[in-house]
Amino acid sequence: MTKRSVTWLVALGLLGGAPLTALPEGPALYPHEELNTWGKWGADDQRGAANYTTPERVAAAGALIRTGRTFSLAIPLDQNGPVFPPRLPPHHTMTITGADYLADPNAAPFGKSPIRFADDYIYMALQGSTQWDGLSHAWYGGSLYNGVPESAIRSSQAGGATKLGIENVKTGFVGRGVLIDVVRYKGGPLPEGYTITRADLEGALAKQKAEVLPGDVIIIRTGLVPSWYELDAMGRAAFFAKPMTGIGSDTVPWIHEKQVAGVAADNIALERIPNELDPELVVPLHGNLLRDLGVYIGEIWWLEELAEDCAKDGRYAFFLAAQPLHIPGAVGSPLNPIAVK
Amino acid sequence: MTKRSVTWLVALGLLGGAPLTALPEGPALYPHEELNTWGKWGADDQRGAANYTTPERVAAAGALIRTGRTFSLAIPLDQNGPVFPPRLPPHHTMTITGADYLADPNAAPFGKSPIRFADDYIYMALQGSTQWDGLSHAWYGGSLYNGVPESAIRSSQAGGATKLGIENVKTGFVGRGVLIDVVRYKGGPLPEGYTITRADLEGALAKQKAEVLPGDVIIIRTGLVPSWYELDAMGRAAFFAKPMTGIGSDTVPWIHEKQVAGVAADNIALERIPNELDPELVVPLHGNLLRDLGVYIGEIWWLEELAEDCAKDGRYAFFLAAQPLHIPGAVGSPLNPIAVK
Amino acid sequence: MTKRSVTWLVALGLLGGAPLTALPEGPALYPHEELNTWGKWGADDQRGAANYTTPERVAAAGALIRTGRTFSLAIPLDQNGPVFPPRLPPHHTMTITGADYLADPNAAPFGKSPIRFADDYIYMALQGSTQWDGLSHAWYGGSLYNGVPESAIRSSQAGGATKLGIENVKTGFVGRGVLIDVVRYKGGPLPEGYTITRADLEGALAKQKAEVLPGDVIIIRTGLVPSWYELDAMGRAAFFAKPMTGIGSDTVPWIHEKQVAGVAADNIALERIPNELDPELVVPLHGNLLRDLGVYIGEIWWLEELAEDCAKDGRYAFFLAAQPLHIPGAVGSPLNPIAVK
Amino acid sequence: MTKRSVTWLVALGLLGGAPLTALPEGPALYPHEELNTWGKWGADDQRGAANYTTPERVAAAGALIRTGRTFSLAIPLDQNGPVFPPRLPPHHTMTITGADYLADPNAAPFGKSPIRFADDYIYMALQGSTQWDGLSHAWYGGSLYNGVPESAIRSSQAGGATKLGIENVKTGFVGRGVLIDVVRYKGGPLPEGYTITRADLEGALAKQKAEVLPGDVIIIRTGLVPSWYELDAMGRAAFFAKPMTGIGSDTVPWIHEKQVAGVAADNIALERIPNELDPELVVPLHGNLLRDLGVYIGEIWWLEELAEDCAKDGRYAFFLAAQPLHIPGAVGSPLNPIAVK
Repeated sequence: MTKRSVTWLVALGLLGGAPLTALPEGPALYPHEELNTWGKWGADDQRGAANYTTPERVAAAGALIRTGRTFSLAIPLDQNGPVFPPRLPPHHTMTITGADYLADPNAAPFGKSPIRFADDYIYMALQGSTQWDGLSHAWYGGSLYNGVPESAIRSSQAGGATKLGIENVKTGFVGRGVLIDVVRYKGGPLPEGYTITRADLEGALAKQKAEVLPGDVIIIRTGLVPSWYELDAMGRAAFFAKPMTGIGSDTVPWIHEKQVAGVAADNIALERIPNELDPELVVPLHGNLLRDLGVYIGEIWWLEELAEDCAKDGRYAFFLAAQPLHIPGAVGSPLNPIAVK
Repeated sequence: MTKRSVTWLVALGLLGGAPLTALPEGPALYPHEELNTWGKWGADDQRGAANYTTPERVAAAGALIRTGRTFSLAIPLDQNGPVFPPRLPPHHTMTITGADYLADPNAAPFGKSPIRFADDYIYMALQGSTQWDGLSHAWYGGSLYNGVPESAIRSSQAGGATKLGIENVKTGFVGRGVLIDVVRYKGGPLPEGYTITRADLEGALAKQKAEVLPGDVIIIRTGLVPSWYELDAMGRAAFFAKPMTGIGSDTVPWIHEKQVAGVAADNIALERIPNELDPELVVPLHGNLLRDLGVYIGEIWWLEELAEDCAKDGRYAFFLAAQPLHIPGAVGSPLNPIAVK
Repeated sequence: MTKRSVTWLVALGLLGGAPLTALPEGPALYPHEELNTWGKWGADDQRGAANYTTPERVAAAGALIRTGRTFSLAIPLDQNGPVFPPRLPPHHTMTITGADYLADPNAAPFGKSPIRFADDYIYMALQGSTQWDGLSHAWYGGSLYNGVPESAIRSSQAGGATKLGIENVKTGFVGRGVLIDVVRYKGGPLPEGYTITRADLEGALAKQKAEVLPGDVIIIRTGLVPSWYELDAMGRAAFFAKPMTGIGSDTVPWIHEKQVAGVAADNIALERIPNELDPELVVPLHGNLLRDLGVYIGEIWWLEELAEDCAKDGRYAFFLAAQPLHIPGAVGSPLNPIAVK
Repeated sequence: MTKRSVTWLVALGLLGGAPLTALPEGPALYPHEELNTWGKWGADDQRGAANYTTPERVAAAGALIRTGRTFSLAIPLDQNGPVFPPRLPPHHTMTITGADYLADPNAAPFGKSPIRFADDYIYMALQGSTQWDGLSHAWYGGSLYNGVPESAIRSSQAGGATKLGIENVKTGFVGRGVLIDVVRYKGGPLPEGYTITRADLEGALAKQKAEVLPGDVIIIRTGLVPSWYELDAMGRAAFFAKPMTGIGSDTVPWIHEKQVAGVAADNIALERIPNELDPELVVPLHGNLLRDLGVYIGEIWWLEELAEDCAKDGRYAFFLAAQPLHIPGAVGSPLNPIAVK
């Protein structure tokens, strides 16, 4: 914890319950706050680091498609996944089924047609499964990415995220993806609450003989989501109170240097929880990545099959189709990222 | 309408309200029922025509990525789109907003962290926006694709679509896509309730100098969805009672010959409604495509920008990333299809 | 439209887009704003006119129970009712059904138990069917009832209606109810967009030989909701653009004098829409009743059977059990009001 | 466990996976199956024991209203209540708030009106809070109450509970209620997993000098729901795996003799879980009460304030307004039961 961030915490404590609509002037207040891309793509830009993924880079990523093998990086959208409380797990319901026609051949008549059909609905948190956090999802100091005031993020009938909504990147995250398999690099399952460092990322890349290019999506394997599925009900209840493996504070400058569009992982919140430098800080890296750098955060991804394949063929870069859904005013989106090799 | 299908309709009429658990033996009963791919990929196959999209074909499609330009083929997931009654439009809600922090800086405290965040939910029909119909969505004669009994499609707590669920194609529809711009081919907006014929599809392809390859997703431009957005409340209320532009019955053999994985369009139900041969038949082609051929149906897609670009550069084939969400037991899925050129 | 309200509208116009966090000082600004019960039940009161329904009055109402005949005053919570756009109609889904057990006797196993069961969910607007508007539902001038600032009404994760939530009256509206049958008084169906006046209410009561007592819930029969159910799809689409029958501005002082807890009707928004004095004003009486007087508004009630019974036995007062659901932080609630005679 | 029920379990085991559409002929198979009210109110009756609550009895119950004190017997409809997995807790969202108007005075414009408003939605299991189980909620042997085949209970688009839906008792459970305070009778908190016997019910009534009359709703205090609210996250995760206090098998004949409309309690499933006679049986009394006797089951009620008042004034009978919501085709309903003394 640097002196500057200590100052910042003190300042926050002093502020108490008063409205924090702007960062106090004077000394720096937030770790890494000197790293910032505001204005880099224009004062009105709403896409942030997704701008790094230029058409040229997408075109270049096309060359990574060689064998045509495809991998889904999504956990099932069902009630069994790890969902950060108090969010609810996705809930799927059917409104007409095949079984209904056993009960009555005219269960859902469609004119004189012999056609029968099944239909369904889902109720889900947009941050409750394999997802992208949009730039409207988290911030500090009263302002979101590029200086958008927090007042721009409203209820759905008032437009939802009227700025920085996920629809701004509806064609985003389609291009080059790179897996960084920290589990394999460290030789096996990471200890509970392990903090992944810059050195880990660089070491794993070196071992993999892989590189990160501007506009990429970095995908970090932690093994945390797979471990969830091994737990019983009690283990799951305890899960969210324990330290959770994720990236540490010193990865922020590295992510910034690499000029990536997004960083995803098979864990709960990408970053280590609680913060490894100050346990009273909750997800401060969300402020660095989403708000300061405009870098998107991918959470609760599923990497097992992809990781196995990369280890086998030694190719850790691939074409990635990780576009969100087109939900206007949403602060994030579930998705089914596909890696194509 | 052939003599055989007349027989079939008569038979159905005679069956009345009695349980129709199997097609009567004897003469053929459903138009085109001689076209069938059951067993082609094994007795237990649950992916149908998605099997046409082999890794080799995906790899070949990668070469279509040249400029890196990307197009979203999804309408917004909001309350304004065309939704076939009685389905509801997607409904987006926020559970915490930036505005809440104006009301109270501690609106949603996160420990001592200065982090603030917004969160949201959605309730939506899986068939209520840009979507794939899965093979579990429609059938006739008591059996779905590959002979799966309709009893396999149940309520969500009993597993939902225990066979042919959309999760079986979670890596599907990533490969080669071809736009067939019937609007441009016919020289402008199609008449209300126009039936698109095999000749139209072949004529448009010829004019476009484009071809369809096995494993492709065919995307047909009808202009119907864009016309919806021009309507007022009364026009929208009338919309679903009017004939709706779509493909006609004679396209079924052609689709089968082409060995495509899926057929999508910017209309409501892909096919012409009501059926152009027998107005009392509702969506019979759903039976041909989903049940008999295992061909997936894409509905309510958005093609305006892509079509303009194809007309400009003359390239109607592209890399398509049109994977569904990973929802186990779902009979379909919303998606955000991305075309990459 | 009085001079005072004109002043008020001018003032509003002048305010333009600036934040209206408090009523400007000076001349009166809102029609009937001199009618106000703020502070009457204490500075911190959150129940408003529900306080009129004292235990003594509930006890007295018990004597109205004579024959034990009961009437439900709720429309069905389904997709067919009149719902003010853009609200969605209630949506009911099953998660396990009897039909599922036809498909598989072990569809939803419960240990070794032979018990089988069905389960269901609902998604609904709390203002989308027979309902109470709580005091947190509508306001003007930056303040709700009793001076509660609008900042107290937040997203659900920030507490929802942290003041004036419907839970404050979870035992409310159980006591004396009086039907005022304006349809019968006027000799038949009211003209489209009819404005119900104070004279109508008094005339109907006189004809009915009924009186209103403090703490009562007044229930006004307009016939509007029944007329909805006679409409086809086009008629329903046009419905909300037409003038809607309801109470007019001159009923406000009368409602205040009567010291009632709530006023309900079988129409859409209780009051005439648009306002009969100024068509550009939308539901101004909501401001008078909910905000100024703390009087609860009941909408979309169903009165046909009750009205017929009252006409038959001449008894228009009854015991009413019209409690809302116990939803903390909700701004209103669906309910099933029961009249007991 | 009697010999007869053992026979029945054996029979079930023998049936294996085969469809169980009717009880096997021969010896009796279900405990208490000789207690049955099928046909008592007609072959087509869909109200069951709610028929016991005649108008005369409702009228008589009116005399119990003396002081006008009212008590809500509902827990809050929020995310903190005890919900039997895999059901989700109720989820409340706002679509427009007061905070939104701080962000923008024109957040949700309503013409030129100064009116501002807040609106909300809820997604909830109909069996996920204070509730009535309808007669369509549980059954055994292929038939529900009065011989209704299980095929009558379908998905919502096929009508939901086409028989025995909760709408059949939309005016039900309004009449006489009696609290049986077993906690007070036993001198304090019941042991974990206590089985409440017929002797307990009779003993408590005798001590209370209270009686049960035909048509009543019996409300049993167990203390289980209040104990839930004392638990932390781990305690809650463990809760549903432990034995749960409730009524035992020998109460069934007594309930039948008493001719009550419904039995409710402040526990999870009314009956002891697992069954005290055979731990492998899950909620067999649901079969006795709902299916055989047509007696409605009330679960997760809140009785603390009412119980305290009854102990104080010695009056354990009261007027009860415990009507469900009017949801056609629903198998149960949340409600806010009000006791009036």
